[in-house]
Amino acid sequence: MSGKAIQDHYAESSSHCYGCGYSNQSGHQLKSHWNGGASTARFTPDAKYVAVPGFVYGGLIASLIDCHGTATAAAALCQSQNRELGDGPVPRFVTASLKVDYLKPTPLGPELELAAMAIEVKDRKVVVDIKLSANGVQCASGKVVAVLMPAGMLDHND
Amino acid sequence: MSGKAIQDHYAESSSHCYGCGYSNQSGHQLKSHWNGGASTARFTPDAKYVAVPGFVYGGLIASLIDCHGTATAAAALCQSQNRELGDGPVPRFVTASLKVDYLKPTPLGPELELAAMAIEVKDRKVVVDIKLSANGVQCASGKVVAVLMPAGMLDHND
Repeated sequence: MSGKAIQDHYAESSSHCYGCGYSNQSGHQLKSHWNGGASTARFTPDAKYVAVPGFVYGGLIASLIDCHGTATAAAALCQSQNRELGDGPVPRFVTASLKVDYLKPTPLGPELELAAMAIEVKDRKVVVDIKLSANGVQCASGKVVAVLMPAGMLDHND
Repeated sequence: MSGKAIQDHYAESSSHCYGCGYSNQSGHQLKSHWNGGASTARFTPDAKYVAVPGFVYGGLIASLIDCHGTATAAAALCQSQNRELGDGPVPRFVTASLKVDYLKPTPLGPELELAAMAIEVKDRKVVVDIKLSANGVQCASGKVVAVLMPAGMLDHND
């Protein structure tokens, strides 16, 4: 278990994600923490992220689930390979498929909690289940099919 | 057919969505246009919405698909009821379920094009298929299960 967030172990070349990259100063900078079998993250949306007054915008919920899912995939793959998170940059996953079920309106104001678990771990594909809760009540569930980033995606680096 | 965007027919009380509400000055203000059977929208992401350099952040793609889906649901329901979009505020849908398949990395820079079609229209539930393309190449597909907004969600208005 590491005290650093999973995303803080991403290589600099893949740390620009608007949702969770430490190099994106304009972004959400979501931080997912791995506890050796599952992961958690916390995020308090700004008031502008409204769906209708009083409730969180569903696009933000999808975004948080997405980034928490790919981070969890990276940590789960490390664990399956008996690698510590701190042993060099973690593998970088991208999302092949994202599914979000909005179980009930998510109140805007409270800190949101995300909890995730990898339910399938292969060397190039990890499937992650995610729950999003507010005030201890689950408001959304998500499923992310994450795949290792294609090598060509980083050819666009400066 | 109306020259105004579908979202511009939302009632003021439900026009605050970060993704597409005309009352949210901080938001994306996505505008979906109905052509009497399908809908289109165009959006050029700001450079900050990066996944890895050169490609669009998946959370933004999910957000655009979500808002284009709920707007299309509203227009499709109006059509099924032989209502013109301009005949008072359109019904307001929220997302019960969102599925996005990321078919290929979406280049960051070009205008994105969204095209949607309702594949199931009931009075309280509409299912919408959405395609997202860049430079004429489809990069993502989405499916939104939209349901009429529960009456209680607007009790939070000021």
